[in-house]
Amino acid sequence: MMLKTPSEIDIVRASASKINEVDFENLAFGNTFTDHMLICDFREGQWQKPIIKPYEPFLIDPSAKVFHYGQAIFEGMKAYKDENDDVWLFRPDENLHRFNKSAKRMAMPEVPEEIFIGGLNAILDLERDWVKKGLGNTLYIRPFMIAIGSGVIAQPSTQYRFMIILSPARSYYSGEVKVIIAEHFSRAANGGIGAAKAAGNYSAQFYPQKLAQEKGFQQIIWTDDATHTKLEEAGTMNVFFRINDTLYTAPTSERILDGVTRKSLIELAKREGINVEVRSVLVDELVNAAKDGSLKEIFGAGTAAVVNPIVGFQYKDVYYELPKMENSFASELKDKLTKIQYKLAEDTFGWTVKV
Amino acid sequence: MMLKTPSEIDIVRASASKINEVDFENLAFGNTFTDHMLICDFREGQWQKPIIKPYEPFLIDPSAKVFHYGQAIFEGMKAYKDENDDVWLFRPDENLHRFNKSAKRMAMPEVPEEIFIGGLNAILDLERDWVKKGLGNTLYIRPFMIAIGSGVIAQPSTQYRFMIILSPARSYYSGEVKVIIAEHFSRAANGGIGAAKAAGNYSAQFYPQKLAQEKGFQQIIWTDDATHTKLEEAGTMNVFFRINDTLYTAPTSERILDGVTRKSLIELAKREGINVEVRSVLVDELVNAAKDGSLKEIFGAGTAAVVNPIVGFQYKDVYYELPKMENSFASELKDKLTKIQYKLAEDTFGWTVKV
Ligand SMILES: Cc1ncc(COP(=O)(O)O)c(C=O)c1O
Ligand SMILES: Cc1ncc(COP(=O)(O)O)c(C=O)c1O
Repeated sequence: MMLKTPSEIDIVRASASKINEVDFENLAFGNTFTDHMLICDFREGQWQKPIIKPYEPFLIDPSAKVFHYGQAIFEGMKAYKDENDDVWLFRPDENLHRFNKSAKRMAMPEVPEEIFIGGLNAILDLERDWVKKGLGNTLYIRPFMIAIGSGVIAQPSTQYRFMIILSPARSYYSGEVKVIIAEHFSRAANGGIGAAKAAGNYSAQFYPQKLAQEKGFQQIIWTDDATHTKLEEAGTMNVFFRINDTLYTAPTSERILDGVTRKSLIELAKREGINVEVRSVLVDELVNAAKDGSLKEIFGAGTAAVVNPIVGFQYKDVYYELPKMENSFASELKDKLTKIQYKLAEDTFGWTVKV
Repeated sequence: MMLKTPSEIDIVRASASKINEVDFENLAFGNTFTDHMLICDFREGQWQKPIIKPYEPFLIDPSAKVFHYGQAIFEGMKAYKDENDDVWLFRPDENLHRFNKSAKRMAMPEVPEEIFIGGLNAILDLERDWVKKGLGNTLYIRPFMIAIGSGVIAQPSTQYRFMIILSPARSYYSGEVKVIIAEHFSRAANGGIGAAKAAGNYSAQFYPQKLAQEKGFQQIIWTDDATHTKLEEAGTMNVFFRINDTLYTAPTSERILDGVTRKSLIELAKREGINVEVRSVLVDELVNAAKDGSLKEIFGAGTAAVVNPIVGFQYKDVYYELPKMENSFASELKDKLTKIQYKLAEDTFGWTVKV
């Protein structure tokens, strides 16, 4: 994949940069934005010329479809800076592909590669200074699309806005992560939109998450909504289970997001000679493995957190603590993946792309 | 229930009304708005003073949670004008109650009665001229709430905006309605948000609806996502089935919206001596009833369309046409309900409330 700036693009530069006001050592995730944003509107059946302009609020009609019918999708990516001050993206073609898969499921227009990838290149080129060097420093990238057409009738919009905003970030989670396994609430329906990165999937989890947090759990591991017997994924992470020396993760489906980190970890693990099985893991299986000591690790995998080790899980009011592993798969895989992303190890897969 | 204006409210009047530019005979549903809108913001844990001001676009941050995580809910109601030029609402307490049930499920703050009902009273009082006399004329009311707090992290917002906008409307559907029964796609998960009037539930249906429309069907009747054997509801309507002389409708559940029209029709039908059974109807049962001629009617029930007769349904590539009924329950119940709403018949239930 080649990155190039779209052939037609307007750039309006901010009169002054906010960069010196930012404390890069103490960033709350997703709250600080760079100087510019990219906007590209879709109307009359066509994508218009993209524009990069100062980051600021915009005007929108109270009857815009995004407010009433939730027609909105997004992506989450990161830019990394290497030791030579070059800026890199990780598998951006995967995000483009998934974005357009989400668009289709939500009856929204697909965004052409020139605008999505070209737009990323153009805005990242402008905001290079916001990508800080050093492991753990990243610029989180949020491409998204919302329905801006007006009208309170439950029909797809005819007008859309694609945007890219950028937020400097360090790692997403801090502290120990304990999870609870969903027994009643669910994230996605069969034949629903679980595999799309659609806005509505996330707010649907806020209430169950709040309940879980009140009980002392940072995350929920979702199960299938029909039987609550199969382990699926967490709110913004796919999930891996290590039983003895085999790594298991659920197959992607209509209900599960096809995570870029997940698929990269599977490839990495295989290359490292780890036995990986992509199949449904049953809750019962997990509980039994925890009881007989064969359950060694659980970890989440996603762009924001990269790899997120889980220290224990609760199911039907019983808490199962995981052993502390010396040579954990989680830390080995995180280390290997991160080094590729920061260009500290050779990228034999061809995953990294230079801005 | 009493309607009164909130004790604290600011009103900024439009300098001129747009009402004379509107062709009330030819209104597309949900596209024309009145002169004013109501806004009430929630921040620092508290609802602020509501304001009524000219209808216009507003400024919002690109990272607002509503765009990224779909934290948004709404209601749909109507105002009716009687022969004496009085304006009436239909069971507004039910909409308030459901709105706050939706708010809870979406981890949003509940809106106090004074703001929701009082706000309705204040804005409807100002917009009386927009409610036209005569059966079929209504002012459609859209209360909604969106998360306006910024930040691209999947957590509930701390800032919200509650709004009321108003759109003059005639009936929602036109022409014959043929439906298709969902065999693959679904509207809601067990333990999901189907019972909430959450924005994300609606855009999730756009793609399957588009496919249905391409095949010549105006609506989908959703089935349970686990087995696709139980009939649930349509996109914005609950559904009734008449088999011989009994009227069936699915019980409300976590997956099904508790419709105000549905519950009113059940009460009305019972009063009219119609046998009503609230229980799951199986797809097989419907197909068999269509085959043996005992299936007499199917109709949708919702605020926008009131009662929407369905002329036939398709299941597994077979189309079943319904008989044309002389004394249909659909038209009898629609007539009775509409007359109560327009104050043309005595409201023995106490459902109507004067503005
Ligand atoms: C529901 C869900 N699952 C999994 C993931 C992980 O996907 P990725 O590795 O592409 O970030 C995400 C995104 O962050 C997500 O939103
Ligand atoms: C999913 C859904 N079902 C049913 C209905 C009918 O509810 P009500 O009669 O309260 O309008 C609606 C709302 O219009 C709806 O959105």
